[in-house]
Amino acid sequence: MPEPRPRIHDTLRRLAALSDTPPERGVTREVYTPTYMRALDLLRAEMEAAGLRTRVDAMGNLIGHLEGTGDDLPRVATGSHFDTTLDAGAYDGVVGVLGGIEAIHVLQEKGITPRRGIDVIGLAGEEPRFGLGCLGSRTIMGQLGPSDAERLRDREGVTLAAALAAAGLDPTRMTEARVAPADLHAFIELHVEQGGTLVAGDRALGVVERVAAAHDLRVTLYGEATHSGATPMPGRRDALVGAAELVLEVQRLAQASSSGTTVGTVGVLHVRPGAANVVPGEVELVIDVRDSDLASREAVVAGLRRALDDIGARHGLRHEVETVQENTPGPCARLVVDAARAASLELGVEPLPMTSGAYHDTVSFLSGGVAGGMIFIPSEGGISHSPLEFTRAEHIDLGVGVLAGALARLAA
Amino acid sequence: MPEPRPRIHDTLRRLAALSDTPPERGVTREVYTPTYMRALDLLRAEMEAAGLRTRVDAMGNLIGHLEGTGDDLPRVATGSHFDTTLDAGAYDGVVGVLGGIEAIHVLQEKGITPRRGIDVIGLAGEEPRFGLGCLGSRTIMGQLGPSDAERLRDREGVTLAAALAAAGLDPTRMTEARVAPADLHAFIELHVEQGGTLVAGDRALGVVERVAAAHDLRVTLYGEATHSGATPMPGRRDALVGAAELVLEVQRLAQASSSGTTVGTVGVLHVRPGAANVVPGEVELVIDVRDSDLASREAVVAGLRRALDDIGARHGLRHEVETVQENTPGPCARLVVDAARAASLELGVEPLPMTSGAYHDTVSFLSGGVAGGMIFIPSEGGISHSPLEFTRAEHIDLGVGVLAGALARLAA
Repeated sequence: MPEPRPRIHDTLRRLAALSDTPPERGVTREVYTPTYMRALDLLRAEMEAAGLRTRVDAMGNLIGHLEGTGDDLPRVATGSHFDTTLDAGAYDGVVGVLGGIEAIHVLQEKGITPRRGIDVIGLAGEEPRFGLGCLGSRTIMGQLGPSDAERLRDREGVTLAAALAAAGLDPTRMTEARVAPADLHAFIELHVEQGGTLVAGDRALGVVERVAAAHDLRVTLYGEATHSGATPMPGRRDALVGAAELVLEVQRLAQASSSGTTVGTVGVLHVRPGAANVVPGEVELVIDVRDSDLASREAVVAGLRRALDDIGARHGLRHEVETVQENTPGPCARLVVDAARAASLELGVEPLPMTSGAYHDTVSFLSGGVAGGMIFIPSEGGISHSPLEFTRAEHIDLGVGVLAGALARLAA
Repeated sequence: MPEPRPRIHDTLRRLAALSDTPPERGVTREVYTPTYMRALDLLRAEMEAAGLRTRVDAMGNLIGHLEGTGDDLPRVATGSHFDTTLDAGAYDGVVGVLGGIEAIHVLQEKGITPRRGIDVIGLAGEEPRFGLGCLGSRTIMGQLGPSDAERLRDREGVTLAAALAAAGLDPTRMTEARVAPADLHAFIELHVEQGGTLVAGDRALGVVERVAAAHDLRVTLYGEATHSGATPMPGRRDALVGAAELVLEVQRLAQASSSGTTVGTVGVLHVRPGAANVVPGEVELVIDVRDSDLASREAVVAGLRRALDDIGARHGLRHEVETVQENTPGPCARLVVDAARAASLELGVEPLPMTSGAYHDTVSFLSGGVAGGMIFIPSEGGISHSPLEFTRAEHIDLGVGVLAGALARLAA
């Protein structure tokens, strides 16, 4: 096992205090908010203390560069996100950004000067404040541009463009954040598992070999808003009754998926008009379906589309379906998997080969043609996106050690 | 049929323009908002133009008094509410306030001076902005006081007391709005049906003989908020899946009710934390169950409580249940039913004897021991609490004529 790294635990605590909700509700630090920008400043100071040359790109990605002896070669990148979803945990994302900075300290302590330059990146907006996640990594890979910034809106209707501007960034210059895939030798991300596989198997670390990806649908059901007291049950066109059937169908189809690993979730559901004595006339919900097995995932999505037609016909509801995101799952790069595995074995830990169920920034790099991979450390209780999220200090120290070893190999 | 009453249609249009949402979303005029207080001013001017002596009581009820020759006798009251729910219609409630004012014009045109004094009342807060409806009529009948005003909160967490204060009213003086039941000879309310019975039967007017009442429960389901990608289906404690089953159970139990007339609705449902990639950890919903048959209604409520225990056990969800309101259904007063029926027959219209499914201010008066009753006029398409709510002009004119005739009889 590697030595303790007290600095990273101290910084994790300081970052957790940068939250828009009180501590008992966990951490809420949505991208581009004033609280988020304070976290960016904190991370920037940490990067500079590690000897990295920092800059913030047009998308708000924070990049700290360590020079290599062959700095003109395609460079190696590591990092993760430092935004959170609502009422979330103190480890998801930030462990990968701070872990990257701490890994640089490890290399320096060991007197290792890499041949390739290394970028440690705090990626903007992995959590879907604007409906779509991984904003920073998608923009770096040229998958998002100014027209998307005008289109994407948060829960309050604020456009991504407006949020960027409020954070002092110019949305019309988003494309300046792009990086040519050929300029990146590899991308490696340290992340908490957010599931219970490592804990259940009593394993300290995993190397991700495949990444699941999400197909998200925004569904709006339209019925008829009538008075709940004066409208008998038979004639009703209750949009929430249709939505309830759809929620259960998501559950049923995912449980019956051919891969056995497809997950389906309705995490967002809004009822309109939303009064106790009005039959719901409109319900909007977001369905998230994920798997590393594309065929199984798409069979669930197709089943949901059929169920929706059936529900609409039975309850007299009209519906609209919009694709929020549809990402391609796939294997991680052998180059990165091998480097992470070797680094883990060097520290005496047999890594668990894993599939990532959650979507991560690494997927943006993989789909952009960059060799990508991930290191997972345990989430106690398998809990994430919750105030109860917790990863033990020794697992973070191990993750930092393995990341440092992998970076040394990839940048050699 | 009675003669056209152009004034009331003009005033209805002017009132519909006092809304916090644009016209295509119908009328939104929640009690005690600045928009609501502008409507109060408009109605006060209309009352004074009809020769009524006006005052606003401590609860914000607007009362216009017509003197009778025996003004020391218990008086007759009519009226309804002029607030609306969200994205609502232009007829629910206001037709009864303006109809009362217009009925006074009818009496004056006919040279009728009543023996008993007549109060036309614009009742405050019939719609449940604060979870509970009929605030004005409940307060008049001594069923609400300052401690309730501190307890009741709207969707934004604003207390009733704070809303009263913001509207220039003193919540500590609420009890001054009370009226002794013995001082009221009768209360009669003209209202749009809000259901489709009159239209389906091609009937122009109904006299309500029984009033349904609501039993409302606020249910909160607690599961575990975890990452939707990293949490396999089997281990989940998804509060929304439990809530969806409950929504369908409300539907099923109401449809199978012993009376055949019980209605059950979930009109409010909030998902927390409410992000696309987080399994819902908490869902709060409001269940509204109504009937004029108390036994049937309570059997549905009891069935729901059992279903909730079962759902909780199967999905690993904890739950809390709070009673929002539990009102007693009952018959209308024979005195008022007979007066309304006679007035309708005098105008050549055989009234339909009806049960009111919706809850109305009349129930507060009935349960307070005042002789109460209602006149219904058709809602086209049976639609209410919707921008599509519509009542034909000739039906409003008829309602005014019948109300005037009933007031003349009750006040004679």
